[in-house]
Formats: sequence, C-alpha cells, structure tokens
Amino acid sequence: MTGSTPTFATVKEQDAYYKSLAPTFQYKNEPVETRDRKVLLVRNETPFNAEPTLPRLIEHQVTPIPRFFKRNHGPIPQLNSAEYTLTVRVVDGPTKVWTLHELQTQFPQYEVMAALQCAGNRRDGLNEVKPVKGVIWGPGTISNAVWSGVRLRDVLLASGEGRFSEKSGARYATWHVDFQAYGLCQEAPCYGSSVPVATVLDPAQDVLLALGMNGETLPADHGYPCRVVVPGVIGARSVKWLKQITVQPEESSIFFQKRDYKILPPEANAQNLGQFWDKLSALQTMNVQSVICYPTADTWIPPGPCTIAGYAISGGGVRIDRVDVSVDNGKTWKLAVLERLLSSIDARANPALRDLPTTKHWAWTRWTYTVKSVPADAVLVCRAWDANGNTQPENPVWNYRGVMNNSWFRVDLSNRPSSRL
Amino acid sequence: MTGSTPTFATVKEQDAYYKSLAPTFQYKNEPVETRDRKVLLVRNETPFNAEPTLPRLIEHQVTPIPRFFKRNHGPIPQLNSAEYTLTVRVVDGPTKVWTLHELQTQFPQYEVMAALQCAGNRRDGLNEVKPVKGVIWGPGTISNAVWSGVRLRDVLLASGEGRFSEKSGARYATWHVDFQAYGLCQEAPCYGSSVPVATVLDPAQDVLLALGMNGETLPADHGYPCRVVVPGVIGARSVKWLKQITVQPEESSIFFQKRDYKILPPEANAQNLGQFWDKLSALQTMNVQSVICYPTADTWIPPGPCTIAGYAISGGGVRIDRVDVSVDNGKTWKLAVLERLLSSIDARANPALRDLPTTKHWAWTRWTYTVKSVPADAVLVCRAWDANGNTQPENPVWNYRGVMNNSWFRVDLSNRPSSRL
Repeated sequence: MTGSTPTFATVKEQDAYYKSLAPTFQYKNEPVETRDRKVLLVRNETPFNAEPTLPRLIEHQVTPIPRFFKRNHGPIPQLNSAEYTLTVRVVDGPTKVWTLHELQTQFPQYEVMAALQCAGNRRDGLNEVKPVKGVIWGPGTISNAVWSGVRLRDVLLASGEGRFSEKSGARYATWHVDFQAYGLCQEAPCYGSSVPVATVLDPAQDVLLALGMNGETLPADHGYPCRVVVPGVIGARSVKWLKQITVQPEESSIFFQKRDYKILPPEANAQNLGQFWDKLSALQTMNVQSVICYPTADTWIPPGPCTIAGYAISGGGVRIDRVDVSVDNGKTWKLAVLERLLSSIDARANPALRDLPTTKHWAWTRWTYTVKSVPADAVLVCRAWDANGNTQPENPVWNYRGVMNNSWFRVDLSNRPSSRL
Repeated sequence: MTGSTPTFATVKEQDAYYKSLAPTFQYKNEPVETRDRKVLLVRNETPFNAEPTLPRLIEHQVTPIPRFFKRNHGPIPQLNSAEYTLTVRVVDGPTKVWTLHELQTQFPQYEVMAALQCAGNRRDGLNEVKPVKGVIWGPGTISNAVWSGVRLRDVLLASGEGRFSEKSGARYATWHVDFQAYGLCQEAPCYGSSVPVATVLDPAQDVLLALGMNGETLPADHGYPCRVVVPGVIGARSVKWLKQITVQPEESSIFFQKRDYKILPPEANAQNLGQFWDKLSALQTMNVQSVICYPTADTWIPPGPCTIAGYAISGGGVRIDRVDVSVDNGKTWKLAVLERLLSSIDARANPALRDLPTTKHWAWTRWTYTVKSVPADAVLVCRAWDANGNTQPENPVWNYRGVMNNSWFRVDLSNRPSSRL
C-alpha cells in the first residue's frame, strides 16, 4: 500500500474500515499452477484458503507445492524481484534496506526441512462442540517442505551494527522481531506478526528468510520473493511477502498478535472476549498433535489387512516419542511404527548445515499401524506423545477462536456400510 | 566408592549385585535439621524419600529447605569441602580437576530461582489405575528454590580448551553431558544421568553447578558441596554430590537414563518392558502440570468463602498461560488468579543476571480461586495451559513406571461429612 495509513479512534472502527475495503480487493492475478484443485479442499476462494485431502496429504514426506495448504488474508501480491527490498529497522538503532540480490549473495545459504501448521488446524473439531469464529479448517492445514534461504539471525547481525552479537545480544532477549508483509489484508493495514528476538538469534532455532521451497524459487502463493519461516511455531508467524522487519521492545501490536491466535477460556464469547486478550500469551510454539489420514470416515475399506496412516508433530522441534493407535475407541492401544528420518540432520540437508548437528525435529513424523482387518464397529483413535512427556487431551476443550485443537483424533467407522463384498 | 568396579555378564546380574549391597548401607549420619518431620510425609526412611503435605508446600513461594522434597538412592554422602574435587572429562579431549575453591572464585557467580519436580510426582494417581513400580509419591515431589553457583556452561568452556566456543560448540550439539555422583546407590555403582550438550551450552537454559540454596550453603541433603541444577527438566537429571562430568557422544548408559524415567506404553509390564526401553526417549523436559494444594479431601472446610489454591508449572521454562478451576467436576470452569512474579527476571534475581533478561519461567506459578462457598457435593478440578498450547490430559494414562502423571487434578469433596456447624 502506498499513501498514509488512516488513524482510528477505536479498534472497532479500524476493524470496520478494513473490512469495508475487502470487497474492493482484486483477485484477477491469483496463481493457478500452485493450486491442485483435485487435491485441495477450498474453504474460501477470495482470499484463497484451502487444505489438501488427508490421504493425499501424507502421500509424500515433502509436500508437493500444489498440495501445500494455502492460508491468505487478501490477494496474492505481485512482487518484482528487481525492485524488491526488505527493510530491517532497529528501534533507536540503524535501518538497513536489503535487495533480493544482496540476500542471495551476501549471506550463507541454508536449507531446512520444516512443517508449517496453522493454529486453526482441526478447527472443525471445536466447531462441532459449539460454533467458533474462523475459517472452519479440517486437519489438513499442515504441510512439510524444504525451505532454502538465509538465516534471519545472520541478517539481524548484519543489520544491527553489533547490537545482536553474542556479548550484547542477550540484552535483547525479551525484545521482539516484528514482521510486516507487502499486500492487502482484510483485517488490518497489512498482514504481520512478531516472534521473540531470543528465538531468532538462537542458531538452533533455524529461523529462515526463505527464498526457495522444495528446490524451486519460492512461488507467489507461498511468499515470493521472500518469506519468514519460523520452524516449530504456529504458521501465522511465518509471514509471507516480507516487507519490513522491526526489532522493538514490545511484541507486534497488530490484530494477529494481540487479538487473535490466543486460546481463550471456555467462558469467552463474542461479547466478553475483550477482557481476555491481554491476559493470555500470543501463541508461538505449537502443541503436540497427531491425525489419522487414512482411512477417513468416508473411505471404502477393502476387506483384509489395513494400514492406518497419519502424521504427528510437536512444537519447538521436540521429537515425537511415540504414537498410540486404538481401533476400539481408546479401550486398547498399540504403538504405531514411526517413519524416522535417518537422523535429525536429514531435516537440515544441505552442506551449510550438515556439519552442524541439530537436536530439533522440525519435520513431521509420518506413522503407520497395520491391523489384520478393521472391525465392523471400529472407532479409530490416535494420540501422540512428545519427548517432553506432553500428550494430546482426550476430548476437545472448546475455545471461541477455535485454535490449537489437538484432542485425540477419532475416525468413527462404526456406521459405515458393511465392507463385505 | 574406591576400588575397581566389578563387571557383569548381564544387566540382570548387575541389578542383583547392587541390590544385594543395599542392606549393608549405613544410614547413621543422616541429616536432621533439613528434614521437617512435621511437614514431610516419609515414603521411605532408608534411603530417605519424603514430600511435604500440600497445604504447607505452597505456603511459600520459595520452599524452605526443611520442607523441600527429598529424593535419595542411598545414604547422604559425607563430603569434605577442602578435599572435594570435580573432574570434567571430554572424551578424546582434556580432563580438568576443579577444587571447590576454584569453582567459588574462578567463575562468575549466578543465582536462579527454579522449581525441581520429580518425574514420579503424582505417581499415586497412576497407581490407583493399576499398580506401578516405584516410590508411591503424592503430588508433593516438587519444590521451588533459589539456587546459587556457577554456570555449567562456563565450567565446560574453561575445561574444553576451545571445544565449546560459539564457533566450534555447535559440533557437540548432539553430544551429552554425563554426570556421576559421589556416594552409594542401590540401583547402580553410583547415581548418574546425562543431559544434551546443547542444553548446557545455551546460556538461556541457566544450567548451574549449585553451591548454595535459598541463600545458604548447599545442605548435605541437597547435594553438598556441589550439585547440578537443570531448570525445567525432570529432577533426576539434577545430580547431587557431583563427582564427575563427562562430555561424550552418547547419553549416559546408566540405569537412570536407559532403563528408567521413560513413559512406557500401556501394554508394557514387568515381563515385556525390555523391548520398549530402546524405542523411547529418556525424559528430560517436564510436561505441563497443576495441582490443587488446598483444600485437600481430608481438610475440614469452614462454611463461607473458600480460596482454592495450588501450583502450576510447565517444562523448559515455558510460561503458564492460564489455570482453569472447576468445582463441579469439570462441567464449568473459571480462570484462577495467577501469582505472577513481577517479571521473569525475578527468577534470576542477582546482579550477574539482572541485566540479562530471560524469557524462561523456571519457578512454579502459584494460583488461587475463591468461591463464595464450597458446594456439599463439590468435586474440585484444575488444569493448566502453557504458552505453547499444551494442556493436561483429562484422565491418567497408565504407565508401568508411573512417571509424568499430569492428568487433571481432582479433589473429591462429595463424600465429606457435612460442613454445617
């Protein structure tokens, strides 16, 4: 957006203003090739919000770009690589402007395999308990990719005139790195978010400015030419079409940080939610999660042995330690077989990282469990445990915004037509 | 122990040997002043294992030493400060021997407020589901203290001849820091454990060699003259009476790392557990936990308003975001009032840390919720949520060793004698 940003007397007034602009947004240049409409379930056409069907989602360890879930708040910006600039500003400090060419040539290039997951993944499960506010996502707003680019840590070090070195960086540990995106947004002047400086400066956190995805140039749908990727953290913080970074004492004041992406208590609703926003943390690290991707409730299951399959992941790079599977609605459980990467180093596959071992598990863990046959009255359940001993709650705990649903994942096959041929 | 360590053909043979020695252990020099027997519930006299009663536990933000829970595997070693040495050995590298005087004078001194919690805390809840193996602890094997001493990171840096500097340290990220204790142990030649090198080298993790506790010299009961304190991690890794540190490629091979302190799946039992040990991670970071400390089921509750009180904590320094309290067995919930430290910096209270802000919440969070009166059929429940969106499971999931029980904490008051005067 060019021109000055209008000011508003109240938050409500601001919300109403940006909502009123949304119908004027133009969607005529939306990408086509990166959206596989045979696989994607489209939740919203404008802005484009879509998730893949579950069985096709876990077909690949690395999700093909056309199947990767899409989460947008406006039209896809048309950015020009030659004119692209990224501004890095430190409050009470220097401002640096980087061109795409400088990002490509002046920093070591890294590659990190990491899943991104929307905080609203599985919102449908909470919406079944009681209506929630938000795009009613199923369990497919997660995908796994190999991201390439530069470490945001390196860019901050090069922009901060010594402020973020090992010696002085600790002073900024409680500060925040605020991201602002290019392009229009239906809830605010632009899309944005922030993460703690401590996360960005820790080399083990692998926070990237991604310029590439799965070996290709980053596509427009996923943030071309430059996006943030914060592994292990809710997808909302991995801001696409990155325009400006501000290092500041407070977290972002934007809607998506202060009045969204928080787990409200059961008593919060559309009328009283204002009293809770400031009491609760802005979500960052994801919780522990697992989902059965095959079979689904509407799958025809052939007689004979059946391999139940799904994904599991925890936040913060914490390893999935085990996945329990039940075919009798949780009465008895068996251990799933986990698809372990050869080592956690596989998740940082290129030479620049290969000699730096990591203990972080940013990629998802696919898993399988084979039964001799699926009982006629089967209710399949899965639950994951991470290496910190956290596990998924048995039942969904409703929250108004429908975020972070990680209750036991159930597939009720008891009402399906008989499988007998 | 002096003399050579015997060798064994099988793990079973080794276990039997050390078990056979235990009856010969002498307990005549056990501490008296640091054990408040009016407050402690003694689970075992020799070795001394005891936890405070719940209402007295949360009386103080910083637990007085005589109430601090005690977890021992043998007699308390009688160590002499003048003769004390700590050996730091790097596999394929240097070995350094430090005296207590050197630890006290050659390193910056730090102070960190951190709770320690036994992985077996609330084992009684799992034992009610089905018998488990281990000391049947209640919910009192957690306490909060101010630990003072030196950063283990600094000692490793000074011992490693450059190996652990920022540039080369990353190569050791997947290595482990093995701890061995002085003194006798009933399960192994000595008590021991290990944590990842990455945890120790990260300054934000605040891993200490503690020489003091709550402003006093570290008492014998808690590891005099020197113990490890690994905040946010199960208590078992915070080895007392520290004798030797080994930096090595593999985690500790000791019983307490390889065949204990893992969450076994429901199908594991005394007969088949061997097949699971190597499949599961050794526990490190604690899961999210909360407990009602007042009232207890056997408290007489006076008529009128009642303040329900308890503690909550998560692992890894993750902030407790909210605690939900129910008086109707989970039908409805209200937010508890959290006792926030003024800031997370309060948890690192001394000048050496005050100017280094932290985002870690190592101390517990005490909480209260006041009801006008406690209904006659009340079943109190609490559940905590951490800032990563993890919460406690509704029901206990049994595991053979009874570790990491963090299910919703319930106090059933429905069968109590009428409170009417």
